[in-house]
Amino acid sequence: MKAQIITIGDELLIGQTLNSNASFIGKSLTDLQIEVQKQAVIGDDEQEILSEFASAWMNHDLVIVTGGLGPTHDDITCEAVAKFFKCELEKNDEVLLDIKERFTRLNRTMALVNETQAMVPKVASVMRNYYGTAPGLWIERDNKMMAVMPGVPYEMKQMMTNYIIPKLSEKIAVRDKVTKRLTLLTTGIAESSLFAKFGDIKEFLQEAKLAFLPSQFGVKLRLTVTEKDEKSAFNKLNELEQKIRSFAGRYIYGKAEDDLAEVVGNLLKERGLTISVAESCTGGNICSMLTNFSGSSKFLERGVVVYSNAAKVELLNVNEDTITAYGAVSKEVAQQMADGIKSISGTDIGLSITGVLGPTGGSDEKPVGTVFIGICDQNGCIAQKFNFGDDRILNKQRASQAALDIVRKYILGIPLDA
Amino acid sequence: MKAQIITIGDELLIGQTLNSNASFIGKSLTDLQIEVQKQAVIGDDEQEILSEFASAWMNHDLVIVTGGLGPTHDDITCEAVAKFFKCELEKNDEVLLDIKERFTRLNRTMALVNETQAMVPKVASVMRNYYGTAPGLWIERDNKMMAVMPGVPYEMKQMMTNYIIPKLSEKIAVRDKVTKRLTLLTTGIAESSLFAKFGDIKEFLQEAKLAFLPSQFGVKLRLTVTEKDEKSAFNKLNELEQKIRSFAGRYIYGKAEDDLAEVVGNLLKERGLTISVAESCTGGNICSMLTNFSGSSKFLERGVVVYSNAAKVELLNVNEDTITAYGAVSKEVAQQMADGIKSISGTDIGLSITGVLGPTGGSDEKPVGTVFIGICDQNGCIAQKFNFGDDRILNKQRASQAALDIVRKYILGIPLDA
Repeated sequence: MKAQIITIGDELLIGQTLNSNASFIGKSLTDLQIEVQKQAVIGDDEQEILSEFASAWMNHDLVIVTGGLGPTHDDITCEAVAKFFKCELEKNDEVLLDIKERFTRLNRTMALVNETQAMVPKVASVMRNYYGTAPGLWIERDNKMMAVMPGVPYEMKQMMTNYIIPKLSEKIAVRDKVTKRLTLLTTGIAESSLFAKFGDIKEFLQEAKLAFLPSQFGVKLRLTVTEKDEKSAFNKLNELEQKIRSFAGRYIYGKAEDDLAEVVGNLLKERGLTISVAESCTGGNICSMLTNFSGSSKFLERGVVVYSNAAKVELLNVNEDTITAYGAVSKEVAQQMADGIKSISGTDIGLSITGVLGPTGGSDEKPVGTVFIGICDQNGCIAQKFNFGDDRILNKQRASQAALDIVRKYILGIPLDA
Repeated sequence: MKAQIITIGDELLIGQTLNSNASFIGKSLTDLQIEVQKQAVIGDDEQEILSEFASAWMNHDLVIVTGGLGPTHDDITCEAVAKFFKCELEKNDEVLLDIKERFTRLNRTMALVNETQAMVPKVASVMRNYYGTAPGLWIERDNKMMAVMPGVPYEMKQMMTNYIIPKLSEKIAVRDKVTKRLTLLTTGIAESSLFAKFGDIKEFLQEAKLAFLPSQFGVKLRLTVTEKDEKSAFNKLNELEQKIRSFAGRYIYGKAEDDLAEVVGNLLKERGLTISVAESCTGGNICSMLTNFSGSSKFLERGVVVYSNAAKVELLNVNEDTITAYGAVSKEVAQQMADGIKSISGTDIGLSITGVLGPTGGSDEKPVGTVFIGICDQNGCIAQKFNFGDDRILNKQRASQAALDIVRKYILGIPLDA
């Protein structure tokens, strides 16, 4: 089954609102193994709506529409549906009762304009709206389906969950093929280097698909397989995952929606380890990431943001001579910072970071993007140097991610890169 | 000028990624008074891409495309552009040099696959990519324009800002009417309370438009006026702004894309004041926000993340008896934390925060969402209590924003709310 999503509303076109509806519907259909081939966003304009309906209806088995069902003058989707299917609007008593009851319940007077919301295209059956006044519409014709829902996200979600997903599940109960996806999250390796590790990608994938999705936090690998049944699909994904892990396992920190800070936090909790963090250039961001998850007080004892040299010396006992000799951004200072925070906190691990995030402060020897990350345990301290880019915020995010990944590798016994 | 946006990528269709690119581009074009008539999202499929290019190019003056320019096998946009414009790909020496320099700078070996990114359709001129290896493409033909950019958001934004927006600004002709927008940023007041302050909103606005855009950081007020010329539009906006400031000025911390942390940082720099921060529940987020902007070392001396009671006592000299008597989440401890961080750092201002962000740790007396913020100068310490909601991350963002706003009010001499 092939689908198109149409979201209607000027607020989407002018970029005032992120299109979370299209994303939610896309995910729901994908979970049902319905292939979403296209999304279109159009304004509240009848000609645009009719023309998009025509091409969507011609090219797809399922068309899902949101937006433009409200009570005001710029809501024209319902009439457009009637025109498209060449039928009349008729008053739906069930809907009218719903609307009246809603206003009674909220102790509000019903505006006359709300009565027009009970006017429904004859061709459609109604999906009830438990959170608002606009009903949803469900149309089946010529072996195709169209669903029309309000654009308010929680009203749309309710109709998807209570009506459309169950309806579609019934219709696709029997099928030939099963599509399954798996996303592996990597960090610390460039997209092109990761790609090179696959060798001949076509030979590697055979019938499967693989997408590389890079960002400042790393590269996501999304595998898609289509097989004759659930079990074959599961086995195929598993086989591919194991192959990828065999040559890139050290870079993989999680799956799907995992967050590296949460992965690291869980590892610390599992192993009963505590950590303290000394941050210079990242300004508290690493601690903040670690504490985004409940239960972080179990492993995070304390952190310091030592922006000034005085703070490095006073709080962490960094040697002033070391700062003079090597500079505050150096391997030596990173190691002393990690050692210092570990000592004053009495934790198992001390983590430190010092660098030049930019845009100013760079030199020939240490250009903007130079960062040293130190980690320390009872056996000693090591520090690793990184070269990030020019952008302050991206550097901060990359540096924080790299520091957390060093902790992950340390706990799992994965050696750091040379 | 009428435009269509095309974003390419399966991750958008299956709902794995929110389409923030389309939103950013839509907003940028709208700001230039270019009408965005349609957005389309399609997969990495050549036929789909060519067919969408065809209809977009026929119906619009400007087509903006993102996605599918990377170095891997599933990136096919560049070839699709060449096919669509019936031209060949040729090696672009400038791009090749950019890519090679990038790898040298990052101290990485360039993969062979990256060389293919220097192959550019003959019809296009190149937009340089400062953050990645894929160049952008700019095509002008038949009095129409097409821009093609990578899908990585920060790479796309850089090209929009440095290349496309200036280019389009030049091309936009003189117009009959001028539409201007102004966004005022408020924090610390609920949307409904702010709305009530306007009285009769229609009388207030006359021909102007006003949108209320609430989030965890506060409520944005977006004013839109359309007038006969630049000057009238400017004057009208100015008049409305002054009126709003007369009854809600204390809540307004900035305009447009201002960030409260940057506003506070600039105030500290202007007044020559220094600050240090002691954070418990926000876990370093306030320091991290303050250091997102270059030059923060001028005013931020240090910060501590005192998650454990031991850290509060050892680093900040908080009295253990106070913790026992009032609890770590209390007005008294907040004041001692602010006093402690000020003393050990020798700064003009000490800021502190302690609270229960949830989901666990709440009690009848101090439910989840209870937060105390302390501020201290040479004249003494005060602390204010806040009640936020149930969501840990939203609470963290709200609490951090509230703490920064207290610093803003303190510097500007605005009394805190009762």
